[in-house]
Amino acid sequence: MSDPADDIMRATYDALCRHGYADLTMRHIAEAADCSKASLHYHYESKQGLMLAFLDYLFERFTERVGGVDGEGGVAGERADGSADAAADPDARLREFVDDVLHPPAEGDTAREFRTALLEIKAQSPYDDAFGERIAAFDDHIYGTVHDLVVAGIDAGVYREGTDPDEVARFVLALVDGAQARHVVAGEDVDALQTALETYLDALVQPTVEPTPEVSQ
Amino acid sequence: MSDPADDIMRATYDALCRHGYADLTMRHIAEAADCSKASLHYHYESKQGLMLAFLDYLFERFTERVGGVDGEGGVAGERADGSADAAADPDARLREFVDDVLHPPAEGDTAREFRTALLEIKAQSPYDDAFGERIAAFDDHIYGTVHDLVVAGIDAGVYREGTDPDEVARFVLALVDGAQARHVVAGEDVDALQTALETYLDALVQPTVEPTPEVSQ
Repeated sequence: MSDPADDIMRATYDALCRHGYADLTMRHIAEAADCSKASLHYHYESKQGLMLAFLDYLFERFTERVGGVDGEGGVAGERADGSADAAADPDARLREFVDDVLHPPAEGDTAREFRTALLEIKAQSPYDDAFGERIAAFDDHIYGTVHDLVVAGIDAGVYREGTDPDEVARFVLALVDGAQARHVVAGEDVDALQTALETYLDALVQPTVEPTPEVSQ
Repeated sequence: MSDPADDIMRATYDALCRHGYADLTMRHIAEAADCSKASLHYHYESKQGLMLAFLDYLFERFTERVGGVDGEGGVAGERADGSADAAADPDARLREFVDDVLHPPAEGDTAREFRTALLEIKAQSPYDDAFGERIAAFDDHIYGTVHDLVVAGIDAGVYREGTDPDEVARFVLALVDGAQARHVVAGEDVDALQTALETYLDALVQPTVEPTPEVSQ
């Protein structure tokens, strides 16, 4: 049996791709969900309430997909997909995390339409605190994960002393937002960005030092 | 004497900051320009026509402000502000260009409001080809300038062989879009990004090689 709330979330996704955010109505969503407007209003009082629930739904799927890092430097969440162990190799885990964030799972032909609707919603966030809070939750998750992995990388001696975790985290956030905007405005995919970001991360890595010969050898 | 077209452009700026793009009407712009709606319609048939003229106006100011690079590797445009000479030092000119692009002149307290309206307009560009073309003009200017400066930098032996000018140009474009979105969504300024971008550019620069001693010395 399908969950009615889940059906409505999928219908909201489809309706956003078809109509964009500005023109979206509860009728569009009811049509996509194949239910009456009255039954949609039974679950959600207004378009705004439904959109907030939709952003919460996206956030839950997002954090499940990309994972995070827990207080002990392990990979947070319930992923059993062979994610790099953050405590053992924070640099590999960081690159994997950014790669996952930059590459949402293929949504068929509607990826650009959906990102366009998301960009419209982002542009509304200064006018609407509740939207702003939902958008901030995604940003906070990305910021916190990158920040903690850079700290772990410095502690492990992988990243150069003096690397600023705040700076790296803000840079990644800007790139993620930039990648979204480039896709919307110019239809560009993120592969060139990914390579450039690797170059940036390589610059944070300590240069290899010849190991001191051990006395016992 | 002030130019009526210029007055209308300034009024459009003010009205966009006050009302955002979605809610903006010709009446708002007429009020800000202190003229009648009829006289505004004498100059511009529709809100869309006026917005396209406004984007052209912004583009002209933008290219005058940030400059570019001409075919001979000199700084294009009529700037007499001591810009670094691209032919003599393409790396310095590239850093200066990106700095200028990332730091629009202070617009007082309305910078975030204006960027929010611009982000709304960008999010409309997939729905409207004429908007899309105007947005692409900014992107093309940034892409072309960065691309040509990286080529000049490789030719001059400043940047590593194998540096991909296309990759660097796309990366800068994504950061510029990302910086705009971060300002809108989180009110962040670009200084942390600027430092991270310098780290990235440093990674493109050839490592210094000890000069071969000359025989005559």
